Formats: sequence, C-alpha cells, structure tokens
Amino acid sequence: MTFLENLTQKLSRLPGIGKRASLRIIYHLLQRDPNLAKLLGESLQQLTERIQKCQTCHTYTEGTHCNVCLDSSRDSSLLCIVEYPQEMANIESTQSYHGYFFVLHGRLSPMDGVGPKSLGIEKIESLVRKRNVKEVLLATSLNPEGEATAIYIKKMLQDYPLLLTRLASGLPVGGSIDSADRLTMIQSLQGRIKFN
Amino acid sequence: MTFLENLTQKLSRLPGIGKRASLRIIYHLLQRDPNLAKLLGESLQQLTERIQKCQTCHTYTEGTHCNVCLDSSRDSSLLCIVEYPQEMANIESTQSYHGYFFVLHGRLSPMDGVGPKSLGIEKIESLVRKRNVKEVLLATSLNPEGEATAIYIKKMLQDYPLLLTRLASGLPVGGSIDSADRLTMIQSLQGRIKFN
Repeated sequence: MTFLENLTQKLSRLPGIGKRASLRIIYHLLQRDPNLAKLLGESLQQLTERIQKCQTCHTYTEGTHCNVCLDSSRDSSLLCIVEYPQEMANIESTQSYHGYFFVLHGRLSPMDGVGPKSLGIEKIESLVRKRNVKEVLLATSLNPEGEATAIYIKKMLQDYPLLLTRLASGLPVGGSIDSADRLTMIQSLQGRIKFN
Repeated sequence: MTFLENLTQKLSRLPGIGKRASLRIIYHLLQRDPNLAKLLGESLQQLTERIQKCQTCHTYTEGTHCNVCLDSSRDSSLLCIVEYPQEMANIESTQSYHGYFFVLHGRLSPMDGVGPKSLGIEKIESLVRKRNVKEVLLATSLNPEGEATAIYIKKMLQDYPLLLTRLASGLPVGGSIDSADRLTMIQSLQGRIKFN
C-alpha cells in the first residue's frame, strides 16, 4: 500500500468521512494548506496525551481538573450525570444549568461487559456525600440501556435524602442528547421531572 | 484558546468539515480509536515530505517518478495535459487512456499571477520533442481559464505535426473533471474532439 493509499484509509476511519472526502482533504492539504497538515498532525499526535479525564467528574480536560469542577461559584447541591463529555458540553452551552456534572463515558451494558465499575458509578455516591448533594439529575439516554443505568444509580442512592430527576421529554425518545438543539435542551432542563 | 478549541479550529479548516463534524471526530478518536489519532497525526506530519511532484509529469508521487511515467508499456505518442493530480487519477481510474500525462497544478490566470512559467508549461514542449508525441489531449477545465490555458499550449506547439484534442463534451460545462462519474469520463475520453 502506498503512503497516500494508507493515509486515505486512515482518514476514512473517521466518522462521516468516506474515501472521496479523504482524497479531497489530502489534495486540499497538498495544494492549498501544506502547513495545516503539519500543525494538524502534531495536534492529533498529542491528543491522547494532552487530553485526560478530570479527576473529579471524568470529563475530558487538559489539566487534572476541568473548568466546571474548578468553578466554586456553582451550586454544589446539584449534580448531573451524563453518559458522554459531548453531552455535558451541550448542556453547558445552554447556560441554563449551574450545578456540577459526572460523566460515565458509557452506559450499563452487561452484554458488552460494561458494568458499574467500568463507568465509575461508585464515585457518584462519594460526591453526593462529600458535597451534600440535594438533587441528582440523571441525564442518561432515553433508551433501555440509559434507563437501566438511571435505575441502577437510583437504587445505589436510595438511602440519601435526594431528589432524583430525569430530563423532561421534549427530546425525541431514542434520539441523542448530544445533538439536541439549544431550545429543546433548555426546555428539557427546565421541565425536568421527578424520577420514580 | 484551549488545546481542544485549537484542534477543533484546525479540523474545521479542512474542506467539508464544520465545527460540529470536528467535535465528532475528536470525540470519536478519544473514545473509540485513540491509536488512530497517533497514526493519523504521524502520517499528516509526514505528508508534505513524503509526497513530492514527479520529476517528469509533476503529479504527486512518493519517489522521484510516478508509476505512470515509470510504465514503459504505455503509448508514448499520446500526452494528456490536466490541471490537477486528482484529475489524472480520475482519468486513470477509467482504464480507458493508455498514454502519458503532464500535470499543470493550476491554469493560466494572469489576474492571480499564474503565468506559463509557474505551471511549467515549457516542459510540455520538451516532452513532445523527446517522445515524438503525435497527439496532445488538452484536458483542462471547460471554463474560460481552462480554455485560455489550452489555447496557450496550442500556440506553443503550433510548429509540431500534432493532433491536438479536447475531451468530448458530455462533461457538464463549468463542472469539474475531478468529480465526473466513470461512464461520463469514458465517453468524454472516447469521443474526444479536435481542438481548433
């Protein structure tokens, strides 16, 4: 395989990029932006070293702790559980939520070997205790695995005097939290409902 | 600007990739394919060093000469002039053309300071002489600048006993040679017409 064929193949492994788009990118870099190839290559090589999981909430961050966890002006009685960092970013972008987060990096899926340990779920309990949390917003997916994850966390926290909430519907069931538009997201945040 | 914001911005400079697609790519790499980030980064950094212009036809290649120029079984009496390497690749993929190529890397555009020298047009004459070329297929774009480039080359070669041809129409006028489908491309190659 030639260098160009190899690079085309690697680019095609990225989401939303096929063979044709890969070639367009390569020719663009060679013909119009050779410097970008170097800069982008450097950044991509550094990506996994530069970006770590926040030691408190597990979202992606550059330092040991993310900006949200370092922001002491937030409401520490409110904790939002999401599956992925991009969902946290989407909720943050609404500027309608002022508590803290915890990122699972997945959801319970025994079939795929994803149990409570690999999601760090036990850490939620220690956050609830340490911060004297009053409300846990379970913003996991509106699908069976997301529901199962929410139910697992609910059971784990049953001895705490907590309000457990879910995002209001308004989000299409089965759709992803990541791609919800801002207004739908705000409605879902403001209309969040008790989790029974 | 954070490392992630910076990487998002760089990815957004690639053709067809917006901010949302950039984020999707970054999260995909972090969550599902961290090794690809390293490999892709390495390849992109090497891109401009590994890929050079062929010393004979000026297409992109890894060595000093491309595979087409190194293939001595081709018809050396036939020379096809294209603007970009991706157009040469598209013509090659039809397997309907068996001559050699010359790649201009652009077209004449005096307004943008692109003259015959920067396209290496004088090299075409020496190829015609050296190889005793009988037909020059001027496969430049079907737009005013592409036409002007074809006319310039025609005048330069007027003292040689040559058949000058253009790709047959069938290609949408103003459209790009790069993105023509295979059948249209074959029709255009087979029905190529004399350039008057």
